[in-house]
Amino acid sequence: MKISLGAKTLAVPTPVWVIGSYDGKGRPNVMTAAWAGICCSRPPCVGVSLRQATYTYGNIVGQKAFTVSIPGRAQAAAADFFGMVSGRDVDKFAATGLTAMKSDLVNAPYVKEFPLILECEVIRQVEIGLHTYFVGQIHDVKAEENVLAEDRALDASKVDPIIFSPEVRRYYGLGDFIGQAFSLGRAFMA
Amino acid sequence: MKISLGAKTLAVPTPVWVIGSYDGKGRPNVMTAAWAGICCSRPPCVGVSLRQATYTYGNIVGQKAFTVSIPGRAQAAAADFFGMVSGRDVDKFAATGLTAMKSDLVNAPYVKEFPLILECEVIRQVEIGLHTYFVGQIHDVKAEENVLAEDRALDASKVDPIIFSPEVRRYYGLGDFIGQAFSLGRAFMA
Repeated sequence: MKISLGAKTLAVPTPVWVIGSYDGKGRPNVMTAAWAGICCSRPPCVGVSLRQATYTYGNIVGQKAFTVSIPGRAQAAAADFFGMVSGRDVDKFAATGLTAMKSDLVNAPYVKEFPLILECEVIRQVEIGLHTYFVGQIHDVKAEENVLAEDRALDASKVDPIIFSPEVRRYYGLGDFIGQAFSLGRAFMA
Repeated sequence: MKISLGAKTLAVPTPVWVIGSYDGKGRPNVMTAAWAGICCSRPPCVGVSLRQATYTYGNIVGQKAFTVSIPGRAQAAAADFFGMVSGRDVDKFAATGLTAMKSDLVNAPYVKEFPLILECEVIRQVEIGLHTYFVGQIHDVKAEENVLAEDRALDASKVDPIIFSPEVRRYYGLGDFIGQAFSLGRAFMA
């Protein structure tokens, strides 16, 4: 039997992604976002929702660019920290000892030590409510060599990303291989 | 060292969510989407990107409503099947033996057997490129009793959702508990 939980943002899985941006003085900042996801295949785009109150919001409106730095499990504490304090008050790179790398394609920094990076130019800004949705066209994806297979394919299991469970605010790892997409479903083909 | 992989939709994790809609004749359809995510906290909203070519696209434009039915691992084959064939050609409920339940809040059906359901009214439609992004305001979340804790909290580990790795097209399960959000990061507090 289904229980009604009310009008809430209770979807799972949600990602734990770190959004990189520069402020008007060129200072790098990062914040953690879970309201985010790929939103178009051609052009390749990723969308990220931010509250206007965040320092990152103003940075992205100003620079029309952001990066997504995707942490692995080893970076969970830093990724969590990036969501706990504001770039107005804290230099988050200095506090964590991580390195801000300037993208060579867009005017935004990424976290050098994180395994997977998306470099994005803002092409749409959609006001929804408390959150504003920014659509970023992905100009490049950069991955650490050690999260790529020999054929340079990128597989989630090597990135070892963090998965967020909203409301209970828990982080989980990626689990075991269930099966191949566009294949498991053949069981139902007539 | 970072390797450039080009402008691709290579973010992980991405969800495996099933979008429910009615066509103009009131026939229920479902399709699987990975380009989706929560996009606003107030009002609670979820965004889903669809190609115009899909049957679901026309349904949602017509009815201004959709549901998100989130499968657990036990429903992986059905969820995969829902992404392999078109509702133009196949009655996907009949083919899988699953049940279309009409939402009592929006004009869209959901998959009765799936553990977690979001019932959504379309409040924005954003043309991006190959994909159109639909923002749905969440009017209710319904969960199977057996995926809720005693206090009715919803935790990802009980839903046991499927996680998609794009390009290599692999499905993974949810892994182990890493830590509590807004807590792990205290390690970096001055």
